[in-house]
Order: sequence, then structure tokens, then C-alpha cells
Amino acid sequence: MTDFRDLMRIRRSVRDYEDRKVPVSLVRELIADACEAPSASNRQPWGFAVVAEKGMMGRLSDESKKNLLNDMKTLKSPTLRLYRPVLKDENFNVYYNAPCLVFITGPKGLHSAVKDCSLAASYFMLSAADRGLGTCWVDLGSAVQDPEILAELHIPEDHRIVAAIVVGYPRVIPERPPRNEPRILAIIE
Amino acid sequence: MTDFRDLMRIRRSVRDYEDRKVPVSLVRELIADACEAPSASNRQPWGFAVVAEKGMMGRLSDESKKNLLNDMKTLKSPTLRLYRPVLKDENFNVYYNAPCLVFITGPKGLHSAVKDCSLAASYFMLSAADRGLGTCWVDLGSAVQDPEILAELHIPEDHRIVAAIVVGYPRVIPERPPRNEPRILAIIE
Repeated sequence: MTDFRDLMRIRRSVRDYEDRKVPVSLVRELIADACEAPSASNRQPWGFAVVAEKGMMGRLSDESKKNLLNDMKTLKSPTLRLYRPVLKDENFNVYYNAPCLVFITGPKGLHSAVKDCSLAASYFMLSAADRGLGTCWVDLGSAVQDPEILAELHIPEDHRIVAAIVVGYPRVIPERPPRNEPRILAIIE
Repeated sequence: MTDFRDLMRIRRSVRDYEDRKVPVSLVRELIADACEAPSASNRQPWGFAVVAEKGMMGRLSDESKKNLLNDMKTLKSPTLRLYRPVLKDENFNVYYNAPCLVFITGPKGLHSAVKDCSLAASYFMLSAADRGLGTCWVDLGSAVQDPEILAELHIPEDHRIVAAIVVGYPRVIPERPPRNEPRILAIIE
């Protein structure tokens, strides 16, 4: 149990994990804590799909890489293009070989879904850090579109993946990356 | 200083505030904590505009209500329509007469901006609860479009308001609204 102000600084995006399973019971606790997040009109529109099986995580990584490389052909996003070399690397697993992956999904038509699910993701990641687990929100790992794979994950057709978060026991906890001075645009008092 | 697991349950969406100013120095501390949130590629794309002046908050409330009522004419959102009666009420202040309002803004063209700013909002609200302050993310209060008002807030043209969060000393802290059982779609292990 960690004081919040310490926890904010302890939580880091972890990209190097021990080869050690996270008990599903523990992942369920993180999900329960994620559901403590506020949501617009207390709608709690989130769903969770847990993947802790290496074969499936490999398929999901390949599927996401394939779709992102396809997107690059049409989208002119310079940030996405930066990732081209790693996405073309067959040995690169977007989930950093973590032992577990949790998708947070939200309804496609709901205007607040990305905000709601991001708040849940925040609670999920802080709760994990509080329990000695590492996480990383891997945006490159959420481009899963294959209907067969989505069906295997029981993600309903009217939901989409908002967050892909890997979970595991950190091998290395990185230093806190530098923060800019807050950009305070105006103070009107 | 509060343990995170307690803090999750202490933080509530507060809609009834004491008539007491929040020191700007304290709001700056909340903003500094918000900037501890993770962001895609550590881009920290957020900006903050603080309004602690009743007249300006009234103008912002009226502006947001006007735009939402206009949106209703074209958008067929049933959730938005629910708010029609309160939005038409001249005496209704969308910011619940809180003493302070903070806009979190993000770049219009950045695909991760809503996620990044929502994570910052989460840290902001938890940090406030940790300091005995109440907050509420007021989505009805973020529909500010008037270029003159946006200029007064120094919100750059390439930024948009992602979150409008009111801050103050709670008069009443509501009960924790019920949470549904987590919707776990699949566990693959």
C-alpha cells in the first residue's frame, strides 16, 4: 500500500519483464480497481479482455503490426512512420514479451468512451504499480482488426479497443523520463 | 498524504462546493502532478488554462450551454438530449458554482491527445482528492468555441479543450455511486 504521491513517481512504463506469470486473480483485482475510475454519467462503459498466453500474444502482435504497416500506406502520420523499422522487424513483439496483456474496450458510438477508458487505464496502471507490477500502455498493440481474432477475445462488434496495457513483474524499472515545465496557458483570477 | 487504495474510494465527483477560493499555488501543484501522468512517446502534449473568476466562469458556462443546445439541432445524440432542460435553464451554471475551473487542452491533430489528456486529468483529480479538494470533470463545460473567449484563455488555435475540471472545497462529498461487476469479456491463458 503506497502513498499516492510516491506512487505517481514509482509508476513507470515498463518494457522489460521477468519471465513469470501474473496470477489471473491479481489481474482481476487490477480490473476491479480500474472500475473505480469515474466515467461520464457513471456509465462505466468499459470491457476487459485478458490475454496471458504467449501464442495468442504473438498473433495479436503480428496482427497489430500488419495493420499499422497497412495504415502507413494511406495515413501520412509522421509519428506512425517513426515506428516503421520496428514494425517491419519480424522478431519485434509489440508487447515487449510481457506475460500478460489487457485490452480495455469501449462502445464505438459513445462520445465519452476514449476518455472513460483512459481514466480506467490510469487507475489500472496505478493499482498495478501499487502491487509491485509493471505496466505499459502499448498503443502499437491495439490495432487489432481481424474479426476472427476479435471474436476469440469476445470483444463485441459494437466495441473497440481503446487501450492495450501489458502487465508483468518488472526486470528493469526505468528512470523517470524528464518532465517539461507545465504549460500553463492562462490564469484568470 | 493518502494511500492510493483509500484515495481511489475517497475521490468522488463533487458538485457542491464551499464559497471559498482555492489558492492558485495549490492549483499549480495539482497541475504539476497531472504532468506526472504517462503520455504517448512521453510527448506531454497537454496545456492548462485556469479560471478562478466568477464572471469569466459564468461566460464560459453560458457559451458552453449555447453551443451544446446548437449541437442538439444537428446531432441526434440521445444522451445529449437528456441535458436539454438544464441547458435551457438560465440559472444553471454547468460548473456547479465551483470557485475554480481548469481546462486541459491538447493538440487538435495528435491522435493520442484525448488519451494523454485524460490520463493527466486522472492524476489531477486524484491529487486534488489527496489534498482534501473536490473535483468534477464537467463534459458539459468544455464546448467553448468562441474564438474571442479562447484567445482570452490563451488556448492556441491548434489546441482543443479535452477536459473541463472544476475544483474546490467540497461542501458535500457524495456517496460512492454503485459499480457494476467488471465486464470481463475473455480470459485467455
